[in-house]
Amino acid sequence: MVGGLVGTSLFLLAASYRTELAERRKLKALFARYVSPEILDEILRRRDVINISGERRFVAVLFADVRGFTRYTEEHEPEQVLSQINQVLGEMTAIILRHGGLVNKFLGDGLMAVFGIPVWKEEIWTEVFAACQAIVTNKNQPTGDALAVGIGLSWGTVLAGSVGNQQRMEYTFFGTPVNLAARLEKMAGPGEILFPFEANRTYPLPTESYTCEEVYIKGLSEPLLVGRIKEWG
Amino acid sequence: MVGGLVGTSLFLLAASYRTELAERRKLKALFARYVSPEILDEILRRRDVINISGERRFVAVLFADVRGFTRYTEEHEPEQVLSQINQVLGEMTAIILRHGGLVNKFLGDGLMAVFGIPVWKEEIWTEVFAACQAIVTNKNQPTGDALAVGIGLSWGTVLAGSVGNQQRMEYTFFGTPVNLAARLEKMAGPGEILFPFEANRTYPLPTESYTCEEVYIKGLSEPLLVGRIKEWG
Repeated sequence: MVGGLVGTSLFLLAASYRTELAERRKLKALFARYVSPEILDEILRRRDVINISGERRFVAVLFADVRGFTRYTEEHEPEQVLSQINQVLGEMTAIILRHGGLVNKFLGDGLMAVFGIPVWKEEIWTEVFAACQAIVTNKNQPTGDALAVGIGLSWGTVLAGSVGNQQRMEYTFFGTPVNLAARLEKMAGPGEILFPFEANRTYPLPTESYTCEEVYIKGLSEPLLVGRIKEWG
Repeated sequence: MVGGLVGTSLFLLAASYRTELAERRKLKALFARYVSPEILDEILRRRDVINISGERRFVAVLFADVRGFTRYTEEHEPEQVLSQINQVLGEMTAIILRHGGLVNKFLGDGLMAVFGIPVWKEEIWTEVFAACQAIVTNKNQPTGDALAVGIGLSWGTVLAGSVGNQQRMEYTFFGTPVNLAARLEKMAGPGEILFPFEANRTYPLPTESYTCEEVYIKGLSEPLLVGRIKEWG
């Protein structure tokens, strides 16, 4: 009698435990989807610590944004606009993840992606430019060329860490490469990729078809040499 | 002997189950901290559904950003900059949560907040303006007046939902109120709050000291009447 009760308890408890394990796994997968698996690892590694000083990391930062979306927004119903945004962001996200990058945040009809987390490797250069090419040449969108994407790219050492307070945090990247990529993206026309041009670079550019120009950037004392890729010849 | 074994198993299983329950609770709390408790509720309510069409919600949208931060960034070490950003964002976040808003995302040295989730109520007007006032008059910052905040405010029906794809999502708000609040924030000087001025408003403004001006906003065909609060007389 007592043995039977204990057996039943054991059985029920085991079932609850299994359910609980499965629930936690699901919750973790959902969490990863909302912050990126790589960033979730960083968060869990440091748990409750707000990383006030941040960690220095070498990364490549990519800002991509749909050109001409303001007009599209005016001419269509909000639900249509959102479905279109979802299509574009979904495609871009898939491309970035396929090339080993992470999507740090969505910004309206655009996004900010980071390559090199947890660790930068020289092979990543190729992946970054391949992702850019795939994004701007992607025809797998219902509106085709009408909603072309412009990209700003930059790289260097950034500070990575959680900002906010104990109630609300976000894992973010700070530093000149982030600001610069954001500014270059604003200057990129439809289908264009802008990036800081380095004459002594150790990485290969993905195409010979690029132009160079000197650009004055707010916050930088010297003009910056910027490379612009318009075509994939 | 067998009873003893079963008893021990039961004891161990119960312990694992308790640990597991505690772990899931911790994970959920951490998740809530990274996306907002209100938004986590929305996410868990719909689980794996990407909410392509979105849900229409009446909300107030607030963009706040630190003025003069670019220069501060140039003159200080990255770690100092991040610690300063954290201080400012932490303070702003605390104020917004205290007044019932949620922080949707951090944007460099600023943030986007939303009031009215899960449900809009008329009392929220007072909370929104009180939060604005608390943010711009907050002296609890190490650098005092030097890093004053500018705020853009707007309200109306937005589309709320998760964008992205199955691998990476974000819960976002779309629509004219969001774009308008972002634009007004860019036009706000240090310590100023800009908002669409409605002559027939049903809500009280928090001060008599405001000015009105007509502003041409990109994407709007007509000039917009904008209220500007500079002082809390």
